[in-house]
Amino acid sequence: MGLPPKAPDQSGNWKIPRALQQQVRPPGMAENGLARPDRVLTLESMNPCVKKVEYAVRGPIVARAVQLEKELQQGVKKPFTEVIRGNIGDAQAMGQKPITFFRQVSALCMYPELLGDPNFPEDAKQKAQRLLAACGGRSIGAYSASPGIELIRQDVARFIEHRDGGIPCNPDNVFLSTGASDAIVTVLKLLVSGEGRSRTGVMLPIPQYPLYSAALAELNAVQINYYLDEENCWALDVGELKRTLRQARDHCQPRALCIINPGNPTGQVQSRRCIEEVIHFAWEERLFLLADEVYQDNIYAEGSQFHSFKKVLFEMGPKYSESVELASFHSISKGYMGECGFRAGYMEVINMEPAVQQQLTKLVSVRLCPPVTGQILLDMVVNRPQPGDPSYQQFCQEKEVVLSTLAKKARLTQEAFRQSPGIHCNPVQGAMYAFPRIQLPPRAVQEAKAQGQAPDMFFCLKLLEETGICVVPGSGFGQKEGTFHFRMTILPPLEKLEILLQKLSQFHAKFTQEYS
Amino acid sequence: MGLPPKAPDQSGNWKIPRALQQQVRPPGMAENGLARPDRVLTLESMNPCVKKVEYAVRGPIVARAVQLEKELQQGVKKPFTEVIRGNIGDAQAMGQKPITFFRQVSALCMYPELLGDPNFPEDAKQKAQRLLAACGGRSIGAYSASPGIELIRQDVARFIEHRDGGIPCNPDNVFLSTGASDAIVTVLKLLVSGEGRSRTGVMLPIPQYPLYSAALAELNAVQINYYLDEENCWALDVGELKRTLRQARDHCQPRALCIINPGNPTGQVQSRRCIEEVIHFAWEERLFLLADEVYQDNIYAEGSQFHSFKKVLFEMGPKYSESVELASFHSISKGYMGECGFRAGYMEVINMEPAVQQQLTKLVSVRLCPPVTGQILLDMVVNRPQPGDPSYQQFCQEKEVVLSTLAKKARLTQEAFRQSPGIHCNPVQGAMYAFPRIQLPPRAVQEAKAQGQAPDMFFCLKLLEETGICVVPGSGFGQKEGTFHFRMTILPPLEKLEILLQKLSQFHAKFTQEYS
Repeated sequence: MGLPPKAPDQSGNWKIPRALQQQVRPPGMAENGLARPDRVLTLESMNPCVKKVEYAVRGPIVARAVQLEKELQQGVKKPFTEVIRGNIGDAQAMGQKPITFFRQVSALCMYPELLGDPNFPEDAKQKAQRLLAACGGRSIGAYSASPGIELIRQDVARFIEHRDGGIPCNPDNVFLSTGASDAIVTVLKLLVSGEGRSRTGVMLPIPQYPLYSAALAELNAVQINYYLDEENCWALDVGELKRTLRQARDHCQPRALCIINPGNPTGQVQSRRCIEEVIHFAWEERLFLLADEVYQDNIYAEGSQFHSFKKVLFEMGPKYSESVELASFHSISKGYMGECGFRAGYMEVINMEPAVQQQLTKLVSVRLCPPVTGQILLDMVVNRPQPGDPSYQQFCQEKEVVLSTLAKKARLTQEAFRQSPGIHCNPVQGAMYAFPRIQLPPRAVQEAKAQGQAPDMFFCLKLLEETGICVVPGSGFGQKEGTFHFRMTILPPLEKLEILLQKLSQFHAKFTQEYS
Repeated sequence: MGLPPKAPDQSGNWKIPRALQQQVRPPGMAENGLARPDRVLTLESMNPCVKKVEYAVRGPIVARAVQLEKELQQGVKKPFTEVIRGNIGDAQAMGQKPITFFRQVSALCMYPELLGDPNFPEDAKQKAQRLLAACGGRSIGAYSASPGIELIRQDVARFIEHRDGGIPCNPDNVFLSTGASDAIVTVLKLLVSGEGRSRTGVMLPIPQYPLYSAALAELNAVQINYYLDEENCWALDVGELKRTLRQARDHCQPRALCIINPGNPTGQVQSRRCIEEVIHFAWEERLFLLADEVYQDNIYAEGSQFHSFKKVLFEMGPKYSESVELASFHSISKGYMGECGFRAGYMEVINMEPAVQQQLTKLVSVRLCPPVTGQILLDMVVNRPQPGDPSYQQFCQEKEVVLSTLAKKARLTQEAFRQSPGIHCNPVQGAMYAFPRIQLPPRAVQEAKAQGQAPDMFFCLKLLEETGICVVPGSGFGQKEGTFHFRMTILPPLEKLEILLQKLSQFHAKFTQEYS
């Protein structure tokens, strides 16, 4: 590490000439072409956990898509006229219209002068007045309580009770959040402790939504992969959970199990029986359950039904319902509303130790509060227009149009891939994604490796360059060694989705031929 | 640690009867009265860094204030009729009105049907249309790019250039955030690394805003305290920086220096000369600078002026401006707008290594994006009505009323304390707070210690119980050993602020007598 400085001077500074300082700097820093020798914060010196973080949904492929869009705008000739974004579950970016009532109430809260405007329906005005009365200074510009506005937490609790057939929900167990991501990371933060072999391990499905792996990397926790069964429509197999848990106990302390239902990126809907088995497993193995249920409104397949972990837990009786620790997450970014930009969600915690729950309350207070505009919109999602309200009919109609269109797109997607040789796609039972498996010729795999790319990244980049279609390689979500996938959303407008599916199949056929 | 299990069964589970499991659990868990023996997540097993987090601004004193408000509502007799909240810089909660133009544009973006409403001014409509065109699908319900909407980053850059007399600002160096807190924590996250004596140390002013200490606790970084000079109007003394830095180098690796200007909780405005000295110090000692400048619009004292660190850095010449790493933070929660509920802010990073800046971009992408409603409002703050625009006059008038009222309250506050024996208060030159030093009789200090409370917490709790006034003890911000303070905001409406100040002085006199 070079020569140590001799001694501090009178004012206590280590006086070393700056030229010498550079000589005694560790070699990695001085020799790195990117790093200016004097920088404090370099790739070498920065937080190593942050460096490990990966988030494919907004990774290099999306950066390239943005670039291509700019090139198109500048008139650069491409083999396509527009980039179609199938990379992210962002419904309104793909043209989905917001629910009118939600935006009316939000506009009234934003600018209460409008409460005198006869063009706004009465129920929207009443709702806005009720919400404003619950805000500090009757303004959405005031901070709220850190776990969220109390009235809205109460509305969430009633919504959960209604959804779960009357099983009670205590508003004190409801924490509003800046999107579901925020709440998920907060719970993971509480769970992480220990060093070396006693480090907290968290079980994640593979394929998974990369928020989870990113958060665990940042928190320096151990990711324990359990594989979903692709041959069985991405079902969760408890035997697989047991196997991976046993192995993980050799090198970490497994403490939590994440489930994403309906699945992201895999689009399956878990059966009730399977949820029971998972809960029994968590009880038996003393694991904290994280149930990511943000797609609970997005169920399309005949015979599929959403069962909340909370409801199943309570229906399994007090042996489970009084002991299994559960955090369940919801969001306004998905469902039929797709209000991603508002960044709002909530979690309910069950059987959390009161002293830990106090720590959770303290922890969320440091960030003051989730965005109040998002809390307001969340309230509308959990406290909807009722039969007889002036806005009821329009609300139901708008909601129905979104959900039935999504169901149609889900069917269209799985049908299209069923007819494509070399592409295998499970039914899109729920959520907003298909995760097809693609066969890639050995020569393409070699070529990708020669270029230092994952083979499915190689495929997706070529797809983007030649067709303008932006989807995310399966390697960003995790997949069985030797298999290749991509995730695409079913969100583009029907006519664009049809083109996308057609182009994708054609491109895959051409790609296969080219590298055979 | 008790008996180990014998062996796994065929399915790989360690089969131990649950009763026995409880016996072999570490004693700490079984004996804790609070913890249910079977819980995974307990006060003992949770993340120890989270346990260390403290955040006084929303701590126990505020919880008690909320309780008192509820009791008053229920008709419980108290020696006061309302709780006056002086604990948090939440202007609109204290009755400050939002800027009309900001809310008009936001309402138009929220519910674009209103673009046809003749009651909205044309410039508001134009601004809304410009912003909507920059949103995915022309909707604020779509995710934005993770560092924020590009158009708004450009507007921020122009705002900074204008503020700093033309010094260039690259929009690529601007990152929008979920309030300034979010950006501050993100930069600290990048900076933290090492173990033991190589652990990152971060220099914080004392008194400080407890977001900083909370973030460092959570990240397990080392907090290095430098004391502001209360006898010299809370000035920052570079000799003190040198002294503390030298000491800190014995036990950690100091890598960053935080400055809050104007000061929170101390309300001082830093002189240009002092900023130059700090920059020179950071250059000399190779420290990354974090400049918290969220109160840049809140300057009240004659002769005080806001100087941005960026501007001073560049005016000191290339030796500094090409090497000192700086992140500067701004927010829409303070200033004249006080839009806390929207959770929006931005940071500009200067001289950050490009590879690290890529890591920063990746890191913020995991949380997808800051709330778009907040980004929209931030755009209005940095891109205001101009002379000739229909909304210009009303905007200027509303802004002026807020700022001149705040200046009046700042003077009122320092005057009131100047006349109170046993209370010493520096001039409130800027920000939104006074941080008076209070003499507490030795018997009160003893009594507090007997009850396990910080003496100023003891004082503030008694103040709350007897007068309904809610202020935060100095111990929540840090203070010189043996001195006692509280932080109060100057935000209550004038008539309430007068009552608050009068009651506070009277209570302190009575308290002093009681414990003498």
